[in-house]
Parts: sequence; structure tokens; C-alpha cells
Amino acid sequence: MTSPSPQVIFMPSGRRGRVQQGESLLDAARQLGVEIESICAGRLTCGKCKVRVEEGHFPKHGIHSHPDHVTPASAEECEMLEKMNGDGHRLSCQAYVQDDVLVFVPEEARAHKQIIRKSATERAIEIVPTVRQLYVEVPQAELGEHRGDWGRLQDALAKEWDLPPLTIDLQALQRLQPALRKGKWAVTVTLRDNAHGMEVIDVLPGYEEGIYGLAVDIGSTTVVGHLCDLRTGAVLATESTMNPQVTYGEDLMSRISYAMMHPDGLTKMHTAILETLNKLAAAAARQAGLRARNIHEAVFVGNTTMIHILLGIDPSELGGAPFALATRDAVDLKARDLGLRLHPGAYVHVLPSEAGHVGADNVGVLIAEEPYNQDEIQLIVDIGTNAEIDLGNRARMYSASSPTGPAFEGAQITFGMRAAPGAIERVRIDRDTLTARFRVIGEESWSDAWRTGPDVPLDDQPRHLAAGICGSGIIEAVAEMFLAGIILPDGRFNPDREHDRVRFNGRKGEYILATGEQTTTGNPIVVTQDDVRSIQLAKAALYAGAKLLMLRAGITKVDRILLAGAFGSYIDTKYAMVLGLIPDCELEKVYAVGNAAGDGARIALLNREKRAEAQKIAQWIKYIETAVDPEFQNEFVGAIHIPHATDAFPHLAGILPTAQDSVPAPRRDRIRGRARE
Amino acid sequence: MTSPSPQVIFMPSGRRGRVQQGESLLDAARQLGVEIESICAGRLTCGKCKVRVEEGHFPKHGIHSHPDHVTPASAEECEMLEKMNGDGHRLSCQAYVQDDVLVFVPEEARAHKQIIRKSATERAIEIVPTVRQLYVEVPQAELGEHRGDWGRLQDALAKEWDLPPLTIDLQALQRLQPALRKGKWAVTVTLRDNAHGMEVIDVLPGYEEGIYGLAVDIGSTTVVGHLCDLRTGAVLATESTMNPQVTYGEDLMSRISYAMMHPDGLTKMHTAILETLNKLAAAAARQAGLRARNIHEAVFVGNTTMIHILLGIDPSELGGAPFALATRDAVDLKARDLGLRLHPGAYVHVLPSEAGHVGADNVGVLIAEEPYNQDEIQLIVDIGTNAEIDLGNRARMYSASSPTGPAFEGAQITFGMRAAPGAIERVRIDRDTLTARFRVIGEESWSDAWRTGPDVPLDDQPRHLAAGICGSGIIEAVAEMFLAGIILPDGRFNPDREHDRVRFNGRKGEYILATGEQTTTGNPIVVTQDDVRSIQLAKAALYAGAKLLMLRAGITKVDRILLAGAFGSYIDTKYAMVLGLIPDCELEKVYAVGNAAGDGARIALLNREKRAEAQKIAQWIKYIETAVDPEFQNEFVGAIHIPHATDAFPHLAGILPTAQDSVPAPRRDRIRGRARE
Repeated sequence: MTSPSPQVIFMPSGRRGRVQQGESLLDAARQLGVEIESICAGRLTCGKCKVRVEEGHFPKHGIHSHPDHVTPASAEECEMLEKMNGDGHRLSCQAYVQDDVLVFVPEEARAHKQIIRKSATERAIEIVPTVRQLYVEVPQAELGEHRGDWGRLQDALAKEWDLPPLTIDLQALQRLQPALRKGKWAVTVTLRDNAHGMEVIDVLPGYEEGIYGLAVDIGSTTVVGHLCDLRTGAVLATESTMNPQVTYGEDLMSRISYAMMHPDGLTKMHTAILETLNKLAAAAARQAGLRARNIHEAVFVGNTTMIHILLGIDPSELGGAPFALATRDAVDLKARDLGLRLHPGAYVHVLPSEAGHVGADNVGVLIAEEPYNQDEIQLIVDIGTNAEIDLGNRARMYSASSPTGPAFEGAQITFGMRAAPGAIERVRIDRDTLTARFRVIGEESWSDAWRTGPDVPLDDQPRHLAAGICGSGIIEAVAEMFLAGIILPDGRFNPDREHDRVRFNGRKGEYILATGEQTTTGNPIVVTQDDVRSIQLAKAALYAGAKLLMLRAGITKVDRILLAGAFGSYIDTKYAMVLGLIPDCELEKVYAVGNAAGDGARIALLNREKRAEAQKIAQWIKYIETAVDPEFQNEFVGAIHIPHATDAFPHLAGILPTAQDSVPAPRRDRIRGRARE
Repeated sequence: MTSPSPQVIFMPSGRRGRVQQGESLLDAARQLGVEIESICAGRLTCGKCKVRVEEGHFPKHGIHSHPDHVTPASAEECEMLEKMNGDGHRLSCQAYVQDDVLVFVPEEARAHKQIIRKSATERAIEIVPTVRQLYVEVPQAELGEHRGDWGRLQDALAKEWDLPPLTIDLQALQRLQPALRKGKWAVTVTLRDNAHGMEVIDVLPGYEEGIYGLAVDIGSTTVVGHLCDLRTGAVLATESTMNPQVTYGEDLMSRISYAMMHPDGLTKMHTAILETLNKLAAAAARQAGLRARNIHEAVFVGNTTMIHILLGIDPSELGGAPFALATRDAVDLKARDLGLRLHPGAYVHVLPSEAGHVGADNVGVLIAEEPYNQDEIQLIVDIGTNAEIDLGNRARMYSASSPTGPAFEGAQITFGMRAAPGAIERVRIDRDTLTARFRVIGEESWSDAWRTGPDVPLDDQPRHLAAGICGSGIIEAVAEMFLAGIILPDGRFNPDREHDRVRFNGRKGEYILATGEQTTTGNPIVVTQDDVRSIQLAKAALYAGAKLLMLRAGITKVDRILLAGAFGSYIDTKYAMVLGLIPDCELEKVYAVGNAAGDGARIALLNREKRAEAQKIAQWIKYIETAVDPEFQNEFVGAIHIPHATDAFPHLAGILPTAQDSVPAPRRDRIRGRARE
């Protein structure tokens, strides 16, 4: 039975409707709200709009579809399909509806593709970048017609696509005329979605596909960039490098001071990071077989100081109360205006900040993890030189920043080093013998299995000896020292725990973690009293921040804890809880989610709607200023001890030493301070 | 008699209406549609809104106004008024309406001031620039408030002014925080009207007024810039300089060739003009006691080749049919994107073009002269290396370009020179003796009054001897030679007119215009047969263009002729008609209007609405392509002779030699060709 106008069903979405006979499947799809990819608008150039016309009976859909329910394929279409291994497919722009038909749209032909991100929760990211390409054939210039090439290009685009008002970048305009002529009046146009229309940022002769983007997390210490294919979301290259500003100060305050004390301080740090970003972009592009000028868009996240310096804004105001940002909003500007050498028309998008001490990096974490879309109450801790802490769920979110200092990154620790080959990252101390075994980065076996010495064949010796201790290593070392009774809950070395691994220099003890034979220098690697103090201060700041948020939110228990950042990804969550870095939570509900800030940058790169979401969330989340809050001070002081009261950490029962163990009892008020909730 | 709500009348506009008691006069004015200038929104800072509250009886208006019909002035207001010599005035933001009142708004307090432009017709230009300044007090940054300084500034602006969505230039953002603090939370914001909102392009501490703009006409030979105060429209400085591209070719075609033949040709010419513009801007600013960074906006006009090169666009397409422009539209971009060193946030606006050979300079002429708003049929001729010709009235306008070549500018003439001191600009030849008297630029007296030689005291000798012949001089020389019978209507030297001033070299004659004693070199200055030919070709092109437009428009007679451009301003219109540069017209209806293209640039600088008008007109006017039109060829050939048929030029009767004069009769078909209408 034939209906007056044929019915078309698109799978897998199941969208259906009647369309005019003779309509192309591509147009039919558009009318029915099914988005099929197409760059060339039916010019048999891109082959993106490939679909399968299903045969046989489909009683479920009530329609019976035959191949001849669409017009047959032309020789050109067959040739195109053959070239792209599209056997059994049709180009939806070339198949015209004759009768009822069922069409399957394969994944690769769907516009708004998705990539799946695996984190604490699996999440799909729809690919809706700010940059797109269109192939268009433009009428030739003719005498007596004066629109100019740009006018004719606009008209040609308007004829085939429903686009907002267009502008053209000067450099694209400079390339327009040669491109049109070289492409024999056919060009591929690269367009960028701006707030108020679209901008042509490139014009290439003929059909030339390819749009790429760079997502960068500018950390105080490390800069990490992901080069992505903006069509598929695929990460083509990842590059990381030191932040060269480290020369001007390890932590944020020292960089702010540097900017305040030196007239050219800002300029030096601004120039240094730009040079590094240019090198990083070039290296990532090279790794992917591209050039930096193929990068059409970049997204940056970082803490507020990093973003101020990136934008050439003096960060001095962030150095003291009231910690006023120059701007809280997201920033969009041409990469070239910053001095970045990407595509000449490329834009940079900087995610918004929340407050003076919580920047675009935390907004990146938020849009990556979306705690504001969950029912569970989550605590997210992003540990860097500063720690950003977020707490809440869809009803309400709070955030704060805690000045943990660089100890967790291995800095300010006697034998501290960055997470590099040779760094001790895992530590176990025998409770009885008090000797340590450890594992270093780059070496599979634990140190107690190492065979060293002149008699051991080189191949059997470990590739890396111990060179120092990285962040996760120092956490485990201090926690194990505590569990073995080497240090007391207040952090002092236990004077009663005499051992040849524990040395005292007056009242200050130190623990020999690695012996001279196990190290690159031949000298032992020790954990000193000062190291323990550094870790205590850092972890107290982190814990106090989290507790302050819980207090403010009126929450006594979190459902889930996410540890973000490179450090968060490598520490053993059990030790984090032993030391009291984070509040109590079921251990299996504590996740390391990796560089969530960088993930957020990548998501904002691939999906422009997430940028709007970021702007909204950045203003919606309630920021709690820790710097001047007396309750933070109180929590901080109360958190300096290493916890052993199992009533505050029920999930540590069996791991923590109890009050009965041979350690002096801490002052009661401290216990009360910690255990109040 | 007191009305329920008081009546306010504003003079001189006479606008009146009732307002709420207690309303400030400033707000009352706004409600009644009277625009009073105000920058500081009632903060007693700018003093712009000064008005006079009129006293006494005004029976004509039916209201009796007393000074106490508004609230009395505070001490602060009195102090402010005293400081600005505002005796007898009130600040309208400080005077609140109590009862019926009559207010006089002095010229300087009116928003949208006008400047009067004197041209063929006197015209008022309203001052509505794209750039404005606002003084605003911003709440201090406070702990617990996270909008950032930019967020707070936006909120403060929104509270007092009805502004479209705001963005901020990166460089202004970089200056924002120090400016707010230096200005004690009060700043002067400079805003630029963009297509989709306003952009903050500068933030200065405290109250700091002053916005300036530069209007530049980029001619093939000369670049002229006017520096204007964007508040008053006053021209503060005028600078002119040679176009350095002359090195790469005298006329447009040779510059286009240079770009085509040399890989770095475009770059060289582009860089050269930018350097010149930077120097010109700096010089104009210096002349006005300012710096180039005080220039907040620039408007450029020029022919299409000049504009392409300015924008770094290869002009090659303009060198051959179909003469495709890269873009016909107006272009708005940051000055710094072009490499122009003006205010760091300054924009450049380039007026639109009409077609491949009629550019922004002609659009400038059009918006300056507004022939499209007149009933009279006007012919406008802008003579440069190319001549642009416009014809029509409000019903219909036509335009064309004619390749006159550089002869009218003194180039390609044996003794040609630019209009500089020593250039012969006026010529009279005695019909009987055939001796010439002339005047040179920089010298008041005619040459026949000069006293030269060793016996004459230096003070009595002319300051400048003749150095060459400029455009207006060669026109008069050739016309006078024709009127004196030295040359024939076909341009040949009259072999029958023997004289010691006329020399023959074979068949080619030459006329001694200045004797050796009258020249700087001691050698005579002559007008050669080739010179006469050059002028014939140039004037034929011009005339043919005008006639072609008349043909196309179906017009046989023009009501008014405007001669634009430097050349057009200096030639004697009578000689222009004698030579047949322009069609017949009453002599008193032929006007020299000066650099109308530059005037148009200035008008677009001062009034943003004229930019929209320019865009509309550029597309509305009908462009006639001369280059390939057989009728143009025909008119051109027909116009090579010097006219003597008074039936084609009735207004030259009595000036032209008649057919009875002792010159050979031209071929009849030529006469008919010229006299067809």
C-alpha cells in the first residue's frame, strides 16, 4: 500500500515521518531532525553522508522497504562509494525517496558524534566543536557583477547552509582570491562559531578536510596538552612539559611576589609560558604528523594566577585580600593576539574562574565530573601546589582552595623529587624489623628483590636505583612510619622506637628509607622530621578545607571521593586516608580520576555547549574563602595530627593503630576537634 | 498657577512636557527627547550638562519660571560651575524640578553636536562617533564577592547607562585593575560601538577625557590625514605625505604588475604604506599636542588597489577582467591587526567599495556630497591617476572609472611636476604676440611683473622661479595654446603659426612657456607635442566616461558639475571646459569641492550612521564598466579632439575659437560624434 507521500524511518534513532517524493534522504533526515554529517552539500566530494537502505520486511515499523524505494545510484556515486569502501551503502544526498523506506545511519555518518570518557562514572561527550568545515562551490567572478569574491562566497554558503551572519578574518580574506582560483571556484571553508555569528577563519582550495584543537592544562609545575581531532574527538598526541615559570618561584605566592617586586616580572613569566605553549603545540602537532598551524582552536585551563599571567594580566591582586580577579568570565580571543603560533585564525578559549583562588582548572574538573548532575554527595579534591576542593550534588555545590604547598609534589622534602624514573613511589615498612621495601618509578620489582653488587650480572640488576622520593612515595613513607610506630600521632619521631634505621640528631629524628646500596648516589635516602612536618602541614590544609566545606554544607558524610590531578592518580587511597588527607569514606568509593582539569579542557574543546555550562556552573557554585575563615584555622590546627581515633574514620578500623598502642595519647581537645561530626 | 506635575520646556528645541516633581533636569531632558551631554552621570565630575534656567515671564510659553522652580545649587555644584566659568548656569544633573521651568541648553551642552561643512552645498554633520567615554564609580572589591573587577565594572556601567552587551579588549583588561585602584575606584571607560554590542577599549584612572580619530585618504600619489576631536568634530591637525608605493610604480596598473611580478611585491608595498601611515599618525598627533596612542579610531578611503594593498590583499585580480574585488564590504578591524600603532584598542574602518575600479574613495565622495539626496542631476568628477565619475540624483545614480593616467597630476609631461613651490599653475598666452605670462606656486606676482637679473635687489626678485608645470598649469597651457591658435583642434602644432616661441623638431612642435631667465635651471620650460597628446588622451578618457554615464542614464544635460580632488580644486573650470574635460554646463554651476573623498572619510569618522549609509549607497549605485564597453571606446575616440563646435558647448560661446578661425576643419564624423546629443 503506497501512501500519498512516502514514509521514511531512520534507525537507530527510530525517527520517522512523511516527506515529499523526490526529496533526498539527506534532506528528509534534516526535516525529521536526524543529523547526518555532510560537508559538501551533495557535491559528491565528502562522502560523509553514507547510509544503508535496509531491505526486506520490517513488520515492526509497518513498512516494507525495497532498494528501489529510493532512486538508483549513479555511476559517480558508485565510484565514490567504492573509493571509500562503502559497499552496500548509499550517499544520502544522492538517494531520492520514491516510496516508504527504512534507513540505517551508521555511527560514522551521524553528526554530533560522541566519545565515551571513562572516569569514576562513564560519560559520553557529544562532539559539537566551535569549528566546522564546509565545502562550497562558488560562482565565478564575472564582469558586471560586483559583489566581490567574499560576497559571492557568502551567497554560495547561504544557498546551501543555514548559517548565522558571517564575518571573515583578515588573513582568511587575504587567502580567499588565490584559493578560489586554485580550487577552480570550489573551496573548503573553516568556520568558527562566535558569540554573534560565525567567522570564516580559513579558505582552502578544493576539498581539504581536517580540523584540530589543543586542550591545555597549565599547572604551576607542569603543562599538559592534548591535541585532538575535532571531528572524532580522538586524542592524536599528548605532550607535557615543565612550566618554565618555576624559575621565578615554586608556588603561586612566590610568582605573584615576583610579579610585584620586578617591573618586568609579569612580562618575563608571560613570555616564558607563551614560548613553552608554542613549543608544546608544535611538538604535539609534529607527533600527530601535523603542523601547529593545523590547530584551529585551543582551550586553556589553569589556576587563576596561571591564567592571569597567560593573559598578560598582573596577578598582584590575587596575592592579598580581597583576592580580586581581573575577570571571572571565560575569555575568547585570537591566538595570535596572545602571540600563540597556531592557525592564523585560531581562537583561544579560557574557561571561566570561580573566585580569586579557584580558577579555570577547577571549572574544568567540574565539567568533566559533573558532580552537579549527581544525587550522591561527592567530594572532589584536585591536589596540586594549591588544592581545589568541591563538595555537593545537584542541589548545591561548594568549592574552596587550600594552600597545601608543594610538599605533595615532592618539593620541600629533603630527598623529594618529581615523579620521574628512580623516584620512590611505593613504600612498605615491616612492623617488627622496621626495614623498608619500596618500588621506584621505571622498575617493576620491589627493592627487596633487587640484586645489586659487583657479582650480579648487569642484566639482573635493577634498571633504576632510588634517586629520591616523589609525592605518592612520601605519603606512603610517612603513613607506614606512623603505622610502624616510628612516628607518633603528633608527628614526632618516637624516642622509644630505637633502631639502626632510625637516627636522632639531637631531638630531630630521621628514618633511613633506602640504604646506600639502593641509591644512585651511594648515600642513604632518609625521611626527616622536617619532611614529616611538611607533609603534616600539607595534609592538614587539605583536610581542613574539605571539613570546612562539609561544615558549610551541613554535611557529615560524603558518598564518594574523587582524587584528581597527577598526584591524586598515583597515591594509594588507603594511605591518603591513613594520613588524614581526606575525610572518612568507604575505601571503594574513593576514586582516582586522573587529570580531570585537563579532561575538562578537552571536553570544552570538543563541545561548545559545555563552555556555556562551565560559565553557568562557575557562577552557581558557592565559593568558600578559606584564607580568612577562623573555622578553617581551627580545622587546620585540629588536623595537624595523624588520625588514630577510629571513631572519626570508621572505615580505617583495622588499619589505624589504636589508643592502646604504645604511643602517647594526643591532647583530648584535638581529638574532639577532629571528631566533632 | 501650579500644575499637578511641573512642566519643563527646553530651548532652543522647544520640546516640552510634564515631568515628576523632583526629577533632575538631566533626566527630564532625556524623558522629553532632549539630548544633553553627560559623561559622569551626575557625579559632579564632567560638567558637560551645564544649562541655563531662564528667569522672568515667558507669556509665549505660558509659563513663568523662577530660579526657585528648581532646587538650589549645592556648594559643590557652585564650585564646579565656577571652575568652568559656568556663571549663571546650573548643572542639569544637580537641579531638580520643583515647578514649571524654562531651560536653555547651550550649544556646548547638546549631545550630537553638528559641524557645518561648506562645499557646493552647505551641510551639517552630526557628531555621532563610534567611540565614547563614560566616567563610572565602581564598588570596591570585597572579600566574599567574586565577580572580578570586570564583572563589577560591567554592573556599575549597567546601573547608570543603558548599554548593549559589553566585551573588553584584552589590553584594556590588562590595564583594568591598576586603573581602578589608581583612580580610587573611579575610572573613565572608552567604549567602541561594534556591530554586536560595545567593546571597552580603554580604562583610565579617574576622570580623563579625550577621544580622537584619524581620517585618511590614501591616494595613489598622496596620502592625506585629518586628526579630529571626536567630541567636537574639530580638525586638530592635517598631514599629507607622498605614497611611498610610488617607488613601485606611478599608476595603479604598474603597482598591480609589481605585485604580480615580484613574490614579495605585495609585502613591500603593504609594509611601505603602513610605515607611512604610522609616521603620518604620529606627526598629526604631535601637531595637535597628542600622541598616536590617543587616536581611538581611524577611517580609511582609497581606490580599490590602495585598499587591497593596505589590507595585505594581493591586488592582482584588479589588473584584469573581470576585476574581482576580494571584498566589496566595509572592513572593520583592530588597528593593531594591521600593524598600525594607534591606541592599542583602536579600530580601523575602511569604507566599502562599489566595484573593481571604484573604491572607498568614491564612496567617500558620495557620502560627502550626497548627490543621491538631491533633485538636481549632478556630475561629480574626482580626478586622480584614475578618475571616478558619478552621475545622477535621488532617483538613480551611476558611477564609472576612467583611466586618465597621471598626466593631470603633472606626470608624463616633459616639464611636469607636482603642485609644489615653483610649479607653473596659471598660464595666459597673448593671442597676438604668442608670449606667455604665468604664475608659479609660492609667488604672488605673474611672471610678466618679475624683475630678475644681477641689477635687481634680491628682495625685489621673485622668491620662486619656474621649476616645472603642475596639473592645473598644463591644462591652462594647452587650453591657451589652443585658444591662441598654436595648436589645432586635433592637437597638432599649427604649422602656419610661426613664431620664435614655437619650435619645430621635424613635424613635432614645442612651445616655449618660460624662457631661460624665468626658470630655476636657466633652461626654457616647454610644452611639447607629446605633452599635448598626453593631455588629449587624459581628457578624452575623462570626457568619455562622463558621456558614457549620461548615455546610460538617458541624460543629455547635467544641472551641476562638481570637481573633486586636489587637481579638481585648482583648475580653472573654464579651461577644463575649453579643453573638453567635462560636458557642457553653466559655468557658474561648476564647483571645485576639494578633497571630497577625504571629507567623506572624516564624515564617516564622526558619524557612524554615515557608515551604514555608505554601505547602502555602495551597493545601490549602478556601476558602469568602462574598460570593456564599446561605447566608451567610441566616446573616447570622439573626444580626443579639442572641442570647438559651440553647439556641443553652448556655454563656451565667446571663449572657443569658431570654425571660421584659421584652423583646418576637423573631419565631419568627429564633429557629429561629439555633438550627437
